[in-house]
Amino acid sequence: MKVGIIGATGYTGGELLRILLKHRKVSEIVPSSRRLEGKRISSVHRSINLDMTFKSVKCASDCDFVFTATPNGVAMKIVPELLECGIKCVDLSADFRFKETSIYERVYGIKHLCPDIEAVYGIPEIRREEIRDSQLVANPGCYPTGAILLAFPIVDLFTTVIFDSKSGVSGAGAEPSKNTHFPEINESIRPYKVTLHRHLFEIRKELGDRKNIFFTPHMVPITRGILTTMHAILKNDVDAEDIRRKVERFYSDELFVRVSEDIPEVGAVRGSNMVHIGGFEKEGKRVVGFSAIDNLVKGASGQAIQNMNIMLGFYEGEGLTTHGTFP
Amino acid sequence: MKVGIIGATGYTGGELLRILLKHRKVSEIVPSSRRLEGKRISSVHRSINLDMTFKSVKCASDCDFVFTATPNGVAMKIVPELLECGIKCVDLSADFRFKETSIYERVYGIKHLCPDIEAVYGIPEIRREEIRDSQLVANPGCYPTGAILLAFPIVDLFTTVIFDSKSGVSGAGAEPSKNTHFPEINESIRPYKVTLHRHLFEIRKELGDRKNIFFTPHMVPITRGILTTMHAILKNDVDAEDIRRKVERFYSDELFVRVSEDIPEVGAVRGSNMVHIGGFEKEGKRVVGFSAIDNLVKGASGQAIQNMNIMLGFYEGEGLTTHGTFP
Amino acid sequence: MKVGIIGATGYTGGELLRILLKHRKVSEIVPSSRRLEGKRISSVHRSINLDMTFKSVKCASDCDFVFTATPNGVAMKIVPELLECGIKCVDLSADFRFKETSIYERVYGIKHLCPDIEAVYGIPEIRREEIRDSQLVANPGCYPTGAILLAFPIVDLFTTVIFDSKSGVSGAGAEPSKNTHFPEINESIRPYKVTLHRHLFEIRKELGDRKNIFFTPHMVPITRGILTTMHAILKNDVDAEDIRRKVERFYSDELFVRVSEDIPEVGAVRGSNMVHIGGFEKEGKRVVGFSAIDNLVKGASGQAIQNMNIMLGFYEGEGLTTHGTFP
Amino acid sequence: MKVGIIGATGYTGGELLRILLKHRKVSEIVPSSRRLEGKRISSVHRSINLDMTFKSVKCASDCDFVFTATPNGVAMKIVPELLECGIKCVDLSADFRFKETSIYERVYGIKHLCPDIEAVYGIPEIRREEIRDSQLVANPGCYPTGAILLAFPIVDLFTTVIFDSKSGVSGAGAEPSKNTHFPEINESIRPYKVTLHRHLFEIRKELGDRKNIFFTPHMVPITRGILTTMHAILKNDVDAEDIRRKVERFYSDELFVRVSEDIPEVGAVRGSNMVHIGGFEKEGKRVVGFSAIDNLVKGASGQAIQNMNIMLGFYEGEGLTTHGTFP
Repeated sequence: MKVGIIGATGYTGGELLRILLKHRKVSEIVPSSRRLEGKRISSVHRSINLDMTFKSVKCASDCDFVFTATPNGVAMKIVPELLECGIKCVDLSADFRFKETSIYERVYGIKHLCPDIEAVYGIPEIRREEIRDSQLVANPGCYPTGAILLAFPIVDLFTTVIFDSKSGVSGAGAEPSKNTHFPEINESIRPYKVTLHRHLFEIRKELGDRKNIFFTPHMVPITRGILTTMHAILKNDVDAEDIRRKVERFYSDELFVRVSEDIPEVGAVRGSNMVHIGGFEKEGKRVVGFSAIDNLVKGASGQAIQNMNIMLGFYEGEGLTTHGTFP
Repeated sequence: MKVGIIGATGYTGGELLRILLKHRKVSEIVPSSRRLEGKRISSVHRSINLDMTFKSVKCASDCDFVFTATPNGVAMKIVPELLECGIKCVDLSADFRFKETSIYERVYGIKHLCPDIEAVYGIPEIRREEIRDSQLVANPGCYPTGAILLAFPIVDLFTTVIFDSKSGVSGAGAEPSKNTHFPEINESIRPYKVTLHRHLFEIRKELGDRKNIFFTPHMVPITRGILTTMHAILKNDVDAEDIRRKVERFYSDELFVRVSEDIPEVGAVRGSNMVHIGGFEKEGKRVVGFSAIDNLVKGASGQAIQNMNIMLGFYEGEGLTTHGTFP
Repeated sequence: MKVGIIGATGYTGGELLRILLKHRKVSEIVPSSRRLEGKRISSVHRSINLDMTFKSVKCASDCDFVFTATPNGVAMKIVPELLECGIKCVDLSADFRFKETSIYERVYGIKHLCPDIEAVYGIPEIRREEIRDSQLVANPGCYPTGAILLAFPIVDLFTTVIFDSKSGVSGAGAEPSKNTHFPEINESIRPYKVTLHRHLFEIRKELGDRKNIFFTPHMVPITRGILTTMHAILKNDVDAEDIRRKVERFYSDELFVRVSEDIPEVGAVRGSNMVHIGGFEKEGKRVVGFSAIDNLVKGASGQAIQNMNIMLGFYEGEGLTTHGTFP
Repeated sequence: MKVGIIGATGYTGGELLRILLKHRKVSEIVPSSRRLEGKRISSVHRSINLDMTFKSVKCASDCDFVFTATPNGVAMKIVPELLECGIKCVDLSADFRFKETSIYERVYGIKHLCPDIEAVYGIPEIRREEIRDSQLVANPGCYPTGAILLAFPIVDLFTTVIFDSKSGVSGAGAEPSKNTHFPEINESIRPYKVTLHRHLFEIRKELGDRKNIFFTPHMVPITRGILTTMHAILKNDVDAEDIRRKVERFYSDELFVRVSEDIPEVGAVRGSNMVHIGGFEKEGKRVVGFSAIDNLVKGASGQAIQNMNIMLGFYEGEGLTTHGTFP
């Protein structure tokens, strides 16, 4: 198996590389970059002990499987050709997440170049069968992964669902900016795009296209991880314990979901592909519940490889069953 | 003016000291501690450059004004005597925050020893006149300060109000514990007491005793600061802009409240007595808004001194108008 | 292979568990604890997704190999019996690090109970052959690992060697204390035991028992990692480039040592068993050089497992070749 | 008193503003910026509660005193004219720190435009009298401030002095870059410019132009503060206690220097103009000692205002005697 990574210089590219290097079905990896072609990989991804350079993007067409980890608007220029060559792909950008490309165009402000190409929205715990049969998987956003997995089995119980999400700074990518400059975000907490963050539309779409789903993201001074707090208003009276059991049952066979009575915390999933769900409590008509993921693993590259494993008929946990590094 | 601090070894005690040392009406400070009597102050509060030791708690009875910064259940044993001596007090614990001591007894699990003593709940922006006339002020909790100031002027507009609060670790006090051990909370985010934290009852009491007010606190790896995110459901349609203006008008003459269109962030109030309120947006029936405070200043010792200034007829900002240290 | 961990509740115990769970030669792990026997492992090591409890310490005698991750003074009571049963051991405490137990007794203030038991000091890159033949390996301290690996190939070039080390807080263990309370160490840097830290004696012993070797540790607000800065004074003039080459040659066949012209940084080894060495520069007679390790992996549990692999004739990198998680 | 700040948008500009706003001799402040002229000050310095905009740089010529907080190479274009107008200045850049402009030109790679203008190197504890009489003070670099104050009274005792300095990220300024991107430096420690950092030449110059003084800086993930560790080799045998006393005596009348037996830590000086010096210990011929400063206050803007106070005959501590915010 020869696997290509297009756009291998960012944080999700680095995580793909880190995980694929320990994947027993992958014999060769081709990390490519337009910008850093020829540069040593270990000069960018300093924890990767590889004597290797970034390749030309063209090399990808020679691979058996390709991940596109490019900025929004780029994969749609690359993927059609790869699919035509019969290469299966997982795209980590937003380009193929919306069947209705009109939503994509409105939310991202980019004209879609291949509205006819079909992709499956790749949350395996919800769409495993579709993923298995697909040529192209659109890997979910990090916030949507945390929110959707938390609420999917129980969303029908509520009249209103509010996601208050707290993310580490690596979610903003590897490109420096004022907002991610250490002294600006360290010792601070910063809400942003407080009602209409792009990921809201992904979340709504997967949770039944409801108008009564809301989302507010915050940046907190940690590197990795998203904690999603769900505040929900019950339609009818249901016990918190019943809610937890319902979620537990839904994910009972899942390798990467741990549902428990414990309150999830971000530190416990660091570096792993796990989702921790729990902490369900009810007071009055309000139910609260939580999920924790590593935004770069289950929220991006880990889930992308989980999707690849499914698409190629491998063991779903291949390369991904390491435990988190806590502390 | 001779001012006593009973329980001067904790973080709020240290902040009282830090601020009072620059207060132009205070000529002498008597920091006392049962546990560390005789120990150098700078060995505990390492940023205080004072050649002075902790005094005996008895010395407080000799003061013109006393702050009690003791654990819950202690001030109620000390304050009655001080009041009898004609000494005005601000208590930073929860002992006098509830007129109905039955709520206090239920929430804190402590039998109240002096239910007849009257105290004013000390949020100056809301109860300034009562504070001016009182002998004893119950200084609000840190979370309630952030939540109440944010919602007070607009709470009637909503059918449901959910406070999702994120606090720095100093809010847990100076006593080490598993939860505040650096490797356990660093690089993590941890929700706790997710529906029935004690401060919920303070918040509800001040916001009209409504059942439809909810509160979930989270610990984040910063030292100081609380960001309060309010998610609220509108009764009738109102513009976010109108909501902001309403809040702005309410606080238009206030020294320590900055209401603006900017989204508050914790870093901007660090070390100051300011509350930043803003970021109001509406989407559908949901309104979101934010407040940021330094939990040790406006959320504790700064507000306590603001209350003292009012009680004694000083300029309300005396000692408190320093700007935050950002970055 | 059944492997026991005595004292499995601390951070090094957790790391042993995390790594051994992915070790292909280990079929069963027996994590034991006196204090937490019967308690769920995932309630302590929250990133370990195991439905298992801590066992009784007695169970260890049933294992093929045992790690003792107990406080200083405890392993010496346990190990003799295990050795008698023919069980090979790696001890992660200081109990067996000194052949001259008089040094141990003076430095640690503990009477040694079994001065006759021979152990090999377990830095594989230096003592691989001895480790292969030993029944008991004394796993090095975290600071000594960083310092010794950095200086060993070149120590003879210098008249004076000063190690200025900066460690993450997990090095202080899992037990809360004032010094590791988040608000006390966050946003600070704190030197401690500035001339006679216990690890000095380990470092001196391995580097030729010189008096001209000095060591000063600092605690910095990160969870994992030690950066060791070596300041050394040259006997005779040698180029920095020659020094680097000498170190590079010495470690040329090593799996876990990366010597390069790059300046090591702690983030790049996080979660991995790697040592990064480099940044050698000379100005006048002073040479500076650096090493970076993860104190819980190469500085403790990773190296312990590396030692086990050697002792049992396994591939030395088994379970240990994961790349660090950066960022 | 009308005080101008040229280059008021950076971190040192913000700190000048924060401190000057509480300075009782300053009636008007003119913060100017070429780049952000007309922009709200509170949009950049978010903790400054001022309804004011950045002014044109020209306005400075109208002031009684001017601080230049501009990049290296800029002040030398502005200051000559201000001096001609009779305006006293403190320059926070490196432009006037070297009497021998040839050193400046070599180290900074910038041709000096006014080699004849005389400035005093502004460490008040060492050059107070010269500062009092000067028209122009060159404010020291942050690292040199920590190193020089620590070693000045005792440098003659040593044959070799090595400064191993650890700095917070705000020392790199307000401009985002890869090195200061949160995920790159958080949870890491990174040495840089390990033998020939520009500040070495400032340190050497003030400490007697010795060749046997060395300096290695490290970036650590905190916002503010520099801890300087001095490793020094004694010429003749002297007790650590005698060394401490010598330093203590030297600074006995100083407002901003605290010498003690305690080991300095960065947290204790946060936000204050203090230098903590101490932790002197000797082992063999090696002496170790430490200083801690806030790089933005005593290491930059606080010291600049201390210099202004001296130049204008004000109380030296005016505006500067606030205690640090710990925790």
